[in-house]
Amino acid sequence: MNATLDRKDLIAAEAQKMGKAVFDENNLTKDATVKREAQKTSPKLATLEEAIRRSGLQDGMTISFHHHFRGGDRVVNLVVDKLAEMGFKNLSLAASSLQDVHAPLIEHIKSGVITSISTSGLRGKLADEISRGLMDVPVVFRSHGGRGSAIASGELHIDVAFIGASSSDPLGNACGFSRSENAKSICGSLGYALPDAQYADKVVILTDDLVPYPNTPNAISERNVDFVVEVESVGDSSKIASGAIRDTKNPRDILLAQQAAKVIVNSGYFNDGFSIQTGSGGASLAAVKYIRQSMIDKGIKASFALGGITAHMVKLHEEGLIDRLIDVQSFDRVAAESLMNDPKHKEVSANEYASADEPGSATHYLDIVILSALEVDTDFNVNVLVGSDGIIRGAIGGHPDTAADSALSIIVCPLLRGRIPCVVDKVTTLITPGKSVDVVVTEYGIAVNPARPEVAERLKKAGLKVVDIEWLKERAHKVIGQPAALPFGDKVVGVVMNRDGSVMDVIKNINA
Amino acid sequence: MNATLDRKDLIAAEAQKMGKAVFDENNLTKDATVKREAQKTSPKLATLEEAIRRSGLQDGMTISFHHHFRGGDRVVNLVVDKLAEMGFKNLSLAASSLQDVHAPLIEHIKSGVITSISTSGLRGKLADEISRGLMDVPVVFRSHGGRGSAIASGELHIDVAFIGASSSDPLGNACGFSRSENAKSICGSLGYALPDAQYADKVVILTDDLVPYPNTPNAISERNVDFVVEVESVGDSSKIASGAIRDTKNPRDILLAQQAAKVIVNSGYFNDGFSIQTGSGGASLAAVKYIRQSMIDKGIKASFALGGITAHMVKLHEEGLIDRLIDVQSFDRVAAESLMNDPKHKEVSANEYASADEPGSATHYLDIVILSALEVDTDFNVNVLVGSDGIIRGAIGGHPDTAADSALSIIVCPLLRGRIPCVVDKVTTLITPGKSVDVVVTEYGIAVNPARPEVAERLKKAGLKVVDIEWLKERAHKVIGQPAALPFGDKVVGVVMNRDGSVMDVIKNINA
Repeated sequence: MNATLDRKDLIAAEAQKMGKAVFDENNLTKDATVKREAQKTSPKLATLEEAIRRSGLQDGMTISFHHHFRGGDRVVNLVVDKLAEMGFKNLSLAASSLQDVHAPLIEHIKSGVITSISTSGLRGKLADEISRGLMDVPVVFRSHGGRGSAIASGELHIDVAFIGASSSDPLGNACGFSRSENAKSICGSLGYALPDAQYADKVVILTDDLVPYPNTPNAISERNVDFVVEVESVGDSSKIASGAIRDTKNPRDILLAQQAAKVIVNSGYFNDGFSIQTGSGGASLAAVKYIRQSMIDKGIKASFALGGITAHMVKLHEEGLIDRLIDVQSFDRVAAESLMNDPKHKEVSANEYASADEPGSATHYLDIVILSALEVDTDFNVNVLVGSDGIIRGAIGGHPDTAADSALSIIVCPLLRGRIPCVVDKVTTLITPGKSVDVVVTEYGIAVNPARPEVAERLKKAGLKVVDIEWLKERAHKVIGQPAALPFGDKVVGVVMNRDGSVMDVIKNINA
Repeated sequence: MNATLDRKDLIAAEAQKMGKAVFDENNLTKDATVKREAQKTSPKLATLEEAIRRSGLQDGMTISFHHHFRGGDRVVNLVVDKLAEMGFKNLSLAASSLQDVHAPLIEHIKSGVITSISTSGLRGKLADEISRGLMDVPVVFRSHGGRGSAIASGELHIDVAFIGASSSDPLGNACGFSRSENAKSICGSLGYALPDAQYADKVVILTDDLVPYPNTPNAISERNVDFVVEVESVGDSSKIASGAIRDTKNPRDILLAQQAAKVIVNSGYFNDGFSIQTGSGGASLAAVKYIRQSMIDKGIKASFALGGITAHMVKLHEEGLIDRLIDVQSFDRVAAESLMNDPKHKEVSANEYASADEPGSATHYLDIVILSALEVDTDFNVNVLVGSDGIIRGAIGGHPDTAADSALSIIVCPLLRGRIPCVVDKVTTLITPGKSVDVVVTEYGIAVNPARPEVAERLKKAGLKVVDIEWLKERAHKVIGQPAALPFGDKVVGVVMNRDGSVMDVIKNINA
């Protein structure tokens, strides 16, 4: 009996039963010289144009971007310029947010390269033009958690994601910082880009520091990356702490921050192991500075700080006052560097941060959030997107996500900004429903949602000036009178999605 | 004109166009008291029995396990005992590997609870019984990279993954170590469980240290976890460095390790920035110890060490001789603790480690791998699974993955183990094809694959004893004579899959 034949027959029989091929040694090659060359020239390395061509991008498809460089971003303009040059039309742009720096998109909208946009926010000239009716298709606004959910559920399908990274190896292990000597940029967490990396059909990493393999630890794994493009610059890091997340020196903001700190300390939620997030806006960001001494005095430590992580939070973390940092976006360079170096400073995706669909997302475990507002109305509804002049000038961010999921949401806003009242009858645009808003801190007094009488009671006991929200509105009216109705037109220029995927509000064009 | 009605109409119109619902404030609730209680009692916390019931597991489905606790694992037996008690039948068990400690599975196979198994290896009584024909369906053996690929491609579909973790918070952020004071176990990397966590329909974390949220940094995100079960023990950490990955004191192993080190140093691949992996087996693990002095003398540093990470590698890393550690499995406690504390020690999944389908998996960037063998034949084929007595007594591990993808694969094995020859005419079972094997180091001389004449030349120049592999085989024959043919039966008890999903070999039952 021929033992070799016997075994071959058995292998063939098993393979057939399993519906598999029989192993063929000829498929195996090991040419070490070729191999080593291949390693030096990763199959994923490409110019931007090659990456776009090889990605299979077609007219009508959806491209995506993150905004971790905020006002310093250089990727959106670079890529969309190239797409225009290559002749693409009718693209849908799904950004985690857009900034002043993206004004060049106006021309690409006019020429039909970009025909629809989804984003968390808009600012500057682009926001102006869109508010006035630039686009035929309304811009879809989603919260950060809402965007993560929409991507995960397939509601927002991304064909090609373009992700700026401060370092990447030739295979696509990438992150928002670089450990190499040639580091050109740093943005810290890539949290808003992580759903794109996971769910997009094709992923292109753009990096201004191509480092040798392995670029570990990495935020994005090579598993999720199709192309790696080396570029001169992905962003100006000096601008990550610009605009709405600049550290405030404004005396009124400091006053508001101090008032917010008193609310926190006396809210009933300031207990050992509490958790906290501060949203963008000078006063909310600064609030954490003013609870530090109370934490020390009362021996209270926080289990985690969430969200936009700031230098203030890093300081408290390094002092041992905050145990863990959970970072979906680094709000300044100190935070970005801490993320790079501190194992207890953890990068999370938008989904892990604030998905409404996932019981384990971090916002569900959040005690206290401090948020800003453009307008609050007497039903405690908040608007952070559209100015009182009807022009889009902000971003939803994680506002409705954190307000809804936290145990206590605190809005800090001045009663008046110049001649503009911030406490009003009805918000211009509904972003965060009043049901999610617990406390409103102004320089004239603190209003507590009637649904939270126990919180009002605690604040009164602590000697804080608790007032009726109607009183705040009246007070604003007294100073500046009833504002005139805004000259809105009939065209819908924006649609605001609630985080559950329903339509919450529309933004009409403004004829100002 | 009624402005409010106007807006409501517009919202309804936009929602209809988009196929979305209109936001309903009644869906929003914020009951802070209820909320805080809910947070304390995560919806994912369950007893093992509840988790199994709620997972939807049915007879005939596939369950999975990892082997990061190696001989100390307590999860497989705990879960399968419970499944038997609950009356489940006809389950398929997909383990990353099985050990001596899993002998209780024999009874569950006999009683029909487990009717098929896929694994990297089998040892001890379970391996004995299976070798003798215990199961009707052959065990499917896959390499670690092959298993990762099969899970990612859907070829190996896991219905419910049971993942032992040394810490988890109530939401399922879990890892192979714990930062809490109550840590009971440590296994380090959970790399082989990561594909299960990502791709299984349902994921159950079992942990012996339930820590407060947030358990960051974590290997497994709560996003991928459905249930969290607190158990007395997930594993005996003292046994992670047992068996095939014990640090050797055997003089012959030390001699082989020293020879392997000389091969490495003179191979042509010992250059600044090289990368290295040492597989299980005393001699291969120890080899890295003996290249240390050459690295220092020649000013050569490694870019990364891969794989089973060992205390030896951690030492060289901490001395600055190895820049990064890429860890799919921690081979001892020192490695596990380094993973916990060192940001440049990175945990990777089986896919990121060794997937054949992914150009970016780490093995593709590997210069040198040192591996062991039960048998090597004169075509350089290697067997690491079935003993020369026909009994299964090993594991494929990453052997064929790393041998195929590395620039230089070095097998270390003694010529004889007692009365058993290790260099033979034909391997009992084909695990790693000779085409992937470059050098075989024995205590009697070093054989180089004729496909690599340049390597043979370099080793000869360095004064190493390079011999023909036929000569090694003859030498073994001279000492112990031609071994008798093994008494194999006609039943196929195992099928060996190549990493590309084809059938490479079968294992027949043994009548010994």
